[in-house]
Amino acid sequence: MSSAVIETVSITEFATTTRNWKDSEGHDHASEEPRPATGSILTVTDSDGVSGTCLFAGDYLRPNVMEEFIRPLLIGRDPIRREAIWHDLYLAQRGAYGVLHDRALSFVDQALWDYAGHRFGQPTWKLLGGYRDRVPAYASTMCGDDVPGGLGSPEDYAAFAVKLVERGFTAVKLHTWMPPVSFAPDAKLDIRACAAVREAVGPDIKLMLDSYHWYNRSDALYLAKELEKLDYLWMEEPMDEYSMSSYKWLADQTSTLIAGPESVEGKFRSRAEWAASGSVDILRVGVLSAGGITPALKVCALADAFGMDCELHGSGMASIAALGAAHNARWYETSLLHPHIDYDVPPPHLQRVPDAIDRDGFVIFPDEPGLGQAIDFEYVAANTTGVR
Amino acid sequence: MSSAVIETVSITEFATTTRNWKDSEGHDHASEEPRPATGSILTVTDSDGVSGTCLFAGDYLRPNVMEEFIRPLLIGRDPIRREAIWHDLYLAQRGAYGVLHDRALSFVDQALWDYAGHRFGQPTWKLLGGYRDRVPAYASTMCGDDVPGGLGSPEDYAAFAVKLVERGFTAVKLHTWMPPVSFAPDAKLDIRACAAVREAVGPDIKLMLDSYHWYNRSDALYLAKELEKLDYLWMEEPMDEYSMSSYKWLADQTSTLIAGPESVEGKFRSRAEWAASGSVDILRVGVLSAGGITPALKVCALADAFGMDCELHGSGMASIAALGAAHNARWYETSLLHPHIDYDVPPPHLQRVPDAIDRDGFVIFPDEPGLGQAIDFEYVAANTTGVR
Repeated sequence: MSSAVIETVSITEFATTTRNWKDSEGHDHASEEPRPATGSILTVTDSDGVSGTCLFAGDYLRPNVMEEFIRPLLIGRDPIRREAIWHDLYLAQRGAYGVLHDRALSFVDQALWDYAGHRFGQPTWKLLGGYRDRVPAYASTMCGDDVPGGLGSPEDYAAFAVKLVERGFTAVKLHTWMPPVSFAPDAKLDIRACAAVREAVGPDIKLMLDSYHWYNRSDALYLAKELEKLDYLWMEEPMDEYSMSSYKWLADQTSTLIAGPESVEGKFRSRAEWAASGSVDILRVGVLSAGGITPALKVCALADAFGMDCELHGSGMASIAALGAAHNARWYETSLLHPHIDYDVPPPHLQRVPDAIDRDGFVIFPDEPGLGQAIDFEYVAANTTGVR
Repeated sequence: MSSAVIETVSITEFATTTRNWKDSEGHDHASEEPRPATGSILTVTDSDGVSGTCLFAGDYLRPNVMEEFIRPLLIGRDPIRREAIWHDLYLAQRGAYGVLHDRALSFVDQALWDYAGHRFGQPTWKLLGGYRDRVPAYASTMCGDDVPGGLGSPEDYAAFAVKLVERGFTAVKLHTWMPPVSFAPDAKLDIRACAAVREAVGPDIKLMLDSYHWYNRSDALYLAKELEKLDYLWMEEPMDEYSMSSYKWLADQTSTLIAGPESVEGKFRSRAEWAASGSVDILRVGVLSAGGITPALKVCALADAFGMDCELHGSGMASIAALGAAHNARWYETSLLHPHIDYDVPPPHLQRVPDAIDRDGFVIFPDEPGLGQAIDFEYVAANTTGVR
């Protein structure tokens, strides 16, 4: 049997708009008006002309990474031999000192999974085993702010949560206030917001908290104990996640489920240590931070082996694909929501909202080949700022 | 997009011959002449007429299992949604009290992976990610016996090992003597065989030992310490594997790598305990004993997360498929070899030896759609004893 091989690998950058702006610590907030933004598409095309793409925000794949690592390790290879390609990229990371980051590995892995879907005429989530065809989404709020009608007070969170529940969501995750918001961090204020939301939505809605990430052990334990009373489903990242011992200390003292880690490097290797040591109750992984769908599913398998759920961090169609495979990943995290933005309106470079939430709070998985990213290639062509 | 669904699931039993016979404890030995045997093929066929098959020895899938569990959980389902089907079979095991055993799950999973290969025109090992396209095989001997010219003495093992190395093998795993052989078990005799083989093949051939499985801690430690001197690559299952503590005790005291478990139930769940507790140095799993290629690869991912190699127990094309995916599974274990049998001659129901060893000791993976089992369907049709 002859195999197609990867012939070209390219990045298309295009101008688009976003309703998000980032503060000095990197948190997303809502913008009143659309703001200019850069989008990128990594495209892998084989010798038969079949392509796979990965859409991502920003310009994270720099020309030097493409030239030094991505093209040399991809061109001429069989595009369905993802494990071989991924492993070579992984080995190359050691000498690349952060330039060949886990996101780069993820973009490649996503494009290869999208390719496989197009090559075989199947949605990627099905190719991955198709455990489910829909998943409940939780509304993940932006961090708190001090904007009128925004997320400036416990009452604002409560009002927004009611709107989200009316929209169909059965679960809401609060991101509370973080610097540079002037009055943050404040663990007591976080709990006031959590209490206001519980009071507003009633006992049947699932609630989660992701707060300031650099609380000390004392504040983290305070949050966890208060959330026990408020019946929150889980709490994540109240402390620096490189202190695994702090998380074990915390998890041992509260019945609030602790989920993590999100931010630590090390992919499945670091997460094995978290699982085996009982430092969390729910293991977390992201398709971006772990280096792709392939390694994220290995973390899901790791968690499953320990009887643990695995929480998939972050929105996007690659998360949907992984949720199609892993039975112990139970929720889809939406993009970060804010009262000022209508998330049923797609950004200009998409044909539609690919991860739309139905009226029951579910994402119905796409019924088309590949990841189902819903890229508007005509818009992209008309707004391309560079191909390299 | 419309999906094909599983329309029929059948078992074909056929008459064939084997060169193996089983002793009273279930160990395989060589037969002078071919003996009658039963072979089975599980076939899953979809509404487009595309099929996947799993060939296996014996009649392990009984009619009641097919009627009560397999057909109800497969027919009408999308055959590429393996994770959904496998999980339902797994849940059904609890109430089936051993009747719906892990081998049954494995036969279904193998057939569905073979189906995927035929559906998409790809070798299964490539669909699984294609980390490699060939793998070194180790010659796995039968257990010792008392047959002239067989495996009756340390000298017999040495002579056979030399032949295997001449044939191209770069690694040999000894199964030594076990009851009902009259003079077994005998740890000192095991070590005499191990020493004779090392002496005969020289220092560059990799050697492993799988001995009697019910030694006590003292004998197991004796074996491990002696194998240190003989530079054996690993040792497996010298004690009852349900005593994980005994293995931790053993692994803590020897630099001989301890590999396991092979025989414990519990799939990835039990293996997580072995990995996390440091009870072995190399984790083991079989595509048959873990319930299929899919869960075996989850064990490989688990082992990888702990920085451990994963040794795939047992021969067969499903093991080859898994070896195509898992970078930390490094060897292919042959079927059990004996001086009296020519393994380059296929059994009558195969077109060829599908896992043939080349002159460098490698198995080159099949370049055809599916698992590449090389079933001679004309022979099977002419010798069918039942279809159900």
